[in-house]
Amino acid sequence: METRAETEALAGVLAALDLREVEPDVYAAAPYDDLGVVRSFGGQLIAQGLVAAARTVEGGVPAHSLHAYFLRPGDPDGETLFRVGRLRDGRRLRSRSVSVEQAGRVLATMTVSFAEPAPGFAHQADAPQSPPPETLPTLAEWTEPHGGLADSWLGMRTVETRVAPHPPAGPSLAWHRMAGTVPDNPLLHQALLVYLSDVTTLSAALVPHGFPLGIEEVDGVAWDAVSLDHAVWFHRPARADDWLLFAQQTPAAADGRAFIRAEVFTRDGVLAASITQEGLFFEAT
Amino acid sequence: METRAETEALAGVLAALDLREVEPDVYAAAPYDDLGVVRSFGGQLIAQGLVAAARTVEGGVPAHSLHAYFLRPGDPDGETLFRVGRLRDGRRLRSRSVSVEQAGRVLATMTVSFAEPAPGFAHQADAPQSPPPETLPTLAEWTEPHGGLADSWLGMRTVETRVAPHPPAGPSLAWHRMAGTVPDNPLLHQALLVYLSDVTTLSAALVPHGFPLGIEEVDGVAWDAVSLDHAVWFHRPARADDWLLFAQQTPAAADGRAFIRAEVFTRDGVLAASITQEGLFFEAT
Repeated sequence: METRAETEALAGVLAALDLREVEPDVYAAAPYDDLGVVRSFGGQLIAQGLVAAARTVEGGVPAHSLHAYFLRPGDPDGETLFRVGRLRDGRRLRSRSVSVEQAGRVLATMTVSFAEPAPGFAHQADAPQSPPPETLPTLAEWTEPHGGLADSWLGMRTVETRVAPHPPAGPSLAWHRMAGTVPDNPLLHQALLVYLSDVTTLSAALVPHGFPLGIEEVDGVAWDAVSLDHAVWFHRPARADDWLLFAQQTPAAADGRAFIRAEVFTRDGVLAASITQEGLFFEAT
Repeated sequence: METRAETEALAGVLAALDLREVEPDVYAAAPYDDLGVVRSFGGQLIAQGLVAAARTVEGGVPAHSLHAYFLRPGDPDGETLFRVGRLRDGRRLRSRSVSVEQAGRVLATMTVSFAEPAPGFAHQADAPQSPPPETLPTLAEWTEPHGGLADSWLGMRTVETRVAPHPPAGPSLAWHRMAGTVPDNPLLHQALLVYLSDVTTLSAALVPHGFPLGIEEVDGVAWDAVSLDHAVWFHRPARADDWLLFAQQTPAAADGRAFIRAEVFTRDGVLAASITQEGLFFEAT
């Protein structure tokens, strides 16, 4: 991997993931806001929730999945508490609940599960074809001919993105990586994969309607969205500071909501994770 | 829909979904065991959990999603309690937690979300090609040339299943419906879609390894599995007593676990629901 100078852009995220224990199984995160918008970034909240849950699990057992529901918008300038419940410590599995709170209000509720790897059968879906990320436009370049990036992402300095051409009916393809080197801690890479998984996912729901990825306004119609839920399954280890290909599909939208799923491949074509997200979509005013 | 005589097979399931309130927001289900195996049927537990959550939601607002983690095996002969937490009552959304318990032990933890429909854009994935279910083999007929159905499904009298031919690399295709007429209550149909979603899903993980759907033993190698998690997103209303086509794919298996997702289509090709499930797989002894 090339040396990159942008590691200072990452320092804020890494500090936001370095939770402080305030009482047994309760962790606090200092405010950190990479988006510069009015709501907390959901990907950051659940990345922090994963870290909080992992703090209560002995022996570095890796997470294999998490499921989160978002209940209320967070204040990006407020301190956030992560209250962990020890649901079960089994022989192979450790299960944790996490309540994400600000000023006594629950912003999100999560369950995180950790598993010791065991022998078994293995398979994976093939990675879609994509040119190498270095040859592809950034999100700003990709969206420029269409009127530019949606406002809410303009301040995202910690993530590098490249967009691959994709047919309207196929998966939309985005490469993401953290903008700098991440320490060799597998948990941090899992948490930052979660962080990356909330960058272009919701936007993929608009692609079948002629909105290029990253664009939320076309011909005077503008959509805004909030996450309802978000789930991640970790299949294989992956580095969040190496390019990851997010192949995003949106099987259904109806009744003001849209469902998106993504498969996340390493540059070598290893399927590292699967993701689902449902968003509530409303016309922007 | 044709008249069917098997409605008495459904009576047990419908009774099991007819929960009794034992204290505010706590509901009890009488034992009901359609499988005749040692563990409770997960699909039944989360169908009941959905019903319990809905009992605390005013105005018949439909569920749009649920996420469940299974923590401990249930006793199919024991009474089960469903303890509902009111996470949030918003303008459009109602969020509920459900703790599924037997004798003070938590078997599963769920979150269920209900949403008022709202205007927005709409799309859906195309249904895969399948012959009509009436022309297809039952699960018993389909598995007969391969040594017969896995034991754990032999007693499932309440579900009718037909299997469509499918290439090893494509989605495995199973039609399911409840074996009898279900009353015209949308919540019941949502709950029974959840019930149906736990019949062949895990088995789909073995298909890429040459195990026909419904078969868990090939050439002396036998697999057993338990559900780790299960999530359902409801996109459009559907009847659980009409044939539903489950198009099941397994993007990844590794480390003793396998991840499966399914899309659920009505006979008319409407995408009614999306499903994910992760299973822990181990060699049967």
